[in-house]
Amino acid sequence: MTPEEFRAWGKQVVDWIADYQAGIERYPVRSSVAPGEIRAALPAHPPERGEPFDAVLADLDRVLLPGITHWQHPDFYAYFPANASGPAILGDLLSSGLGVQGMVWATSPACTELETVVVDWLAELLGLPGHVRTDAAGGGVIQDSASSAALVACLAALHRASGGRAATEGITRRYALYVSAHTHSSLERAARMAGIGADNVRVVDVDPATQAMDPEHLAALLAADRAAGVVPALVCATVGTTSTTAIDPVPAIGRICREHGVWLHVDGAYAGVAAVCPELRWVLDGVGEFADSFCTNPHKWLLTNFDCSVLWMADRAPLVAALSILPEYLRNAATASGEVIDYRDWQVPLGRRFRALKLWAVLRWYGAEGLRAHIRRTVALAQEFAALVRADERFEVLEPHPLGLVCFRPLGPDADGRALAGMEELNASGALYLTHTKVDGRVVLRFAIGSPRTERRHVLAAWQRIRRALT
Amino acid sequence: MTPEEFRAWGKQVVDWIADYQAGIERYPVRSSVAPGEIRAALPAHPPERGEPFDAVLADLDRVLLPGITHWQHPDFYAYFPANASGPAILGDLLSSGLGVQGMVWATSPACTELETVVVDWLAELLGLPGHVRTDAAGGGVIQDSASSAALVACLAALHRASGGRAATEGITRRYALYVSAHTHSSLERAARMAGIGADNVRVVDVDPATQAMDPEHLAALLAADRAAGVVPALVCATVGTTSTTAIDPVPAIGRICREHGVWLHVDGAYAGVAAVCPELRWVLDGVGEFADSFCTNPHKWLLTNFDCSVLWMADRAPLVAALSILPEYLRNAATASGEVIDYRDWQVPLGRRFRALKLWAVLRWYGAEGLRAHIRRTVALAQEFAALVRADERFEVLEPHPLGLVCFRPLGPDADGRALAGMEELNASGALYLTHTKVDGRVVLRFAIGSPRTERRHVLAAWQRIRRALT
Repeated sequence: MTPEEFRAWGKQVVDWIADYQAGIERYPVRSSVAPGEIRAALPAHPPERGEPFDAVLADLDRVLLPGITHWQHPDFYAYFPANASGPAILGDLLSSGLGVQGMVWATSPACTELETVVVDWLAELLGLPGHVRTDAAGGGVIQDSASSAALVACLAALHRASGGRAATEGITRRYALYVSAHTHSSLERAARMAGIGADNVRVVDVDPATQAMDPEHLAALLAADRAAGVVPALVCATVGTTSTTAIDPVPAIGRICREHGVWLHVDGAYAGVAAVCPELRWVLDGVGEFADSFCTNPHKWLLTNFDCSVLWMADRAPLVAALSILPEYLRNAATASGEVIDYRDWQVPLGRRFRALKLWAVLRWYGAEGLRAHIRRTVALAQEFAALVRADERFEVLEPHPLGLVCFRPLGPDADGRALAGMEELNASGALYLTHTKVDGRVVLRFAIGSPRTERRHVLAAWQRIRRALT
Repeated sequence: MTPEEFRAWGKQVVDWIADYQAGIERYPVRSSVAPGEIRAALPAHPPERGEPFDAVLADLDRVLLPGITHWQHPDFYAYFPANASGPAILGDLLSSGLGVQGMVWATSPACTELETVVVDWLAELLGLPGHVRTDAAGGGVIQDSASSAALVACLAALHRASGGRAATEGITRRYALYVSAHTHSSLERAARMAGIGADNVRVVDVDPATQAMDPEHLAALLAADRAAGVVPALVCATVGTTSTTAIDPVPAIGRICREHGVWLHVDGAYAGVAAVCPELRWVLDGVGEFADSFCTNPHKWLLTNFDCSVLWMADRAPLVAALSILPEYLRNAATASGEVIDYRDWQVPLGRRFRALKLWAVLRWYGAEGLRAHIRRTVALAQEFAALVRADERFEVLEPHPLGLVCFRPLGPDADGRALAGMEELNASGALYLTHTKVDGRVVLRFAIGSPRTERRHVLAAWQRIRRALT
């Protein structure tokens, strides 16, 4: 494709996306295709001859769109938000257009240095302490996801806990990892991938009122493991669990981790970005003081399209030591000088895109003011929704719900069955999309507000529909 | 950013990229900034107020471009190519614009089903057997990189070798992984990440004439490990090593792996895509018959911008079993039916972008014909370059060089020192960019041709410069 062809088709694609954004409410939120339906509508074999780009756009409309669940729809309340904003899309487009590799500093210095700048900017916006800055002993890095961040945190923790022997000898003794029942599944997965094993993942009790981790039970489990010769490798505290946005007591957990010399990873994938607002900064209490690693995802609630998960370390040395390998073909003067960051040593893959561009574009387009306004607006909508549900005696709202997620359930006989059936009816209608979880074995519906497109009118209409479907 | 603002800025960004593509030759290929220079030119603090998007574009030109090494430049001969073509960029743009999550089938069915179609199409184009298709027992998946593909292959292999106990109990005995000195460093890294440990990575001898793995030595190492109670977990054979594009004898290695019941992973990150040409399909000899997993990167030589690494499995069951976790909030009817693929279980992260769109756009825009023409043209240019170097008695060309990479070195006293000094002089000039490796302890220069922008005139001019700098 020549530059002039790219110019012409590119503008058509931009128009397609602008039209999609402007008209997104005409689509059902959740796709209703059956398994295999999209595949069956596509050719069984690849084309022998090239086709014009409008054939791709035509099939996108005709074949693919019916199979799309519209995460950018204002009535998408499922899972957590996955904001794709204009500046983020354009930052990512610039990254694709430049097509540079940022695996080491030398392969495109601006790719690494802009990343160090934007993660330091974000650390400042969240009120994180100076030691996590890239010009200090710590440093931040953009990962594809909080799952990958959890894995590399786990590898760094194993490196420290084993005195470096895990990387050379492998796992030669029992290590344990500590989570709660509401910790994200990626932590158990990290334990499996790192060779610790799911059996060595300890599930710390939660406070039944708040679903937050019980520090005393954590301390007891750590002591029991140490007495049994098991090495505690990593404790994961969550700031905003996936099920209910419960917030584990990081200061208390942190003090216990420090006492036991255990790595504390704080997973703030969804909720961490709320700290851009001073009045919500309490969600990160204890993180700056106690966390060895901390992760939050601008690709959820901070207007930066997937993938953009930022991981900060209090000390980057164990991470780099755990992951560093230097083959001859990657040797270069800058790496040898020790003056540069080679992000290759901070992540699972070797290659890396210029992801900093999209976060840079978002931070500049919105500014701190705009990001705060976005968080505040969506939190306020969630609080208004919670008040509506609470005012109806046929429903129960799970407390607390300080952020953009409201969990609730219908009361009365067969509440679980009615909740699931009503949810399916709502989702099948295409009018809105919400998901469920279980708390204490009971079905709870999750209503997550976080899209810049979701307005008060959407929330009010959604509540009317939900009330009808569930009562 | 409203849809209309996006429409306007988006077209400016498309123009920026088209102009960048058209004028790329005016930039020095390799950036010559010093460590810290780009960072110092950027504000120390994030903006409080939002800025218009042209401020981002202005700083891209003024601040970032001097720190960019231009991987899309026609005179970029370093590492391996990382093609970013127009259709791929636009496919990625559509992915960003849709902003959907493909973690499980249900979160956007078209995202999963288009991916199954394009990986099956690519398998057909490469001549891979039917059992690796997604509608058979195997299946393909797009990973971010061959490094991540190697890690998940390793986890699947451990699952099989341990009878499933690795995931639950962790690593409780010694496993070994087999590579050659020229296997990509990501394999040693996978062994470290998976808890096998670098000490348990066996380095199989290579044939000094071809740098290809010696199957007899592999067999001896496997037998010795088994006799010592070490469990062989995975053998990695490489089709096109990073240093010199050496091709390990996959059929012979495969027969040994089968005899020992060991997982065979074939890393064809760079060279695998050459099999789109029938006359180069021999590079995959034995892969279809013997490989448990095989990976090749359209994001290197097949015109699809990073990240797009395709991993195929002969049997997906061990991979899914090794990585599957199903928390309540991801339960859905489609997953429960067993009729769909949930790609979450095939990769390290949970979330995933709609990466199939860019590969789909590339396969359709170029067609099989266009992809073959691209590979043939760049291979022919490499052969012409090799002939030029070979015709100069002051140089030596490493044989064989059947693909787009030519390795060579100057002859005479202090050849290593002159090669490195000459390379640095060339790279510092900005006229071209090449990298080095070591073979048998001697410095060898790598000249990799793979860009659709590289024409005969670039290669001829590059050779004149290289000859002057190195003699």
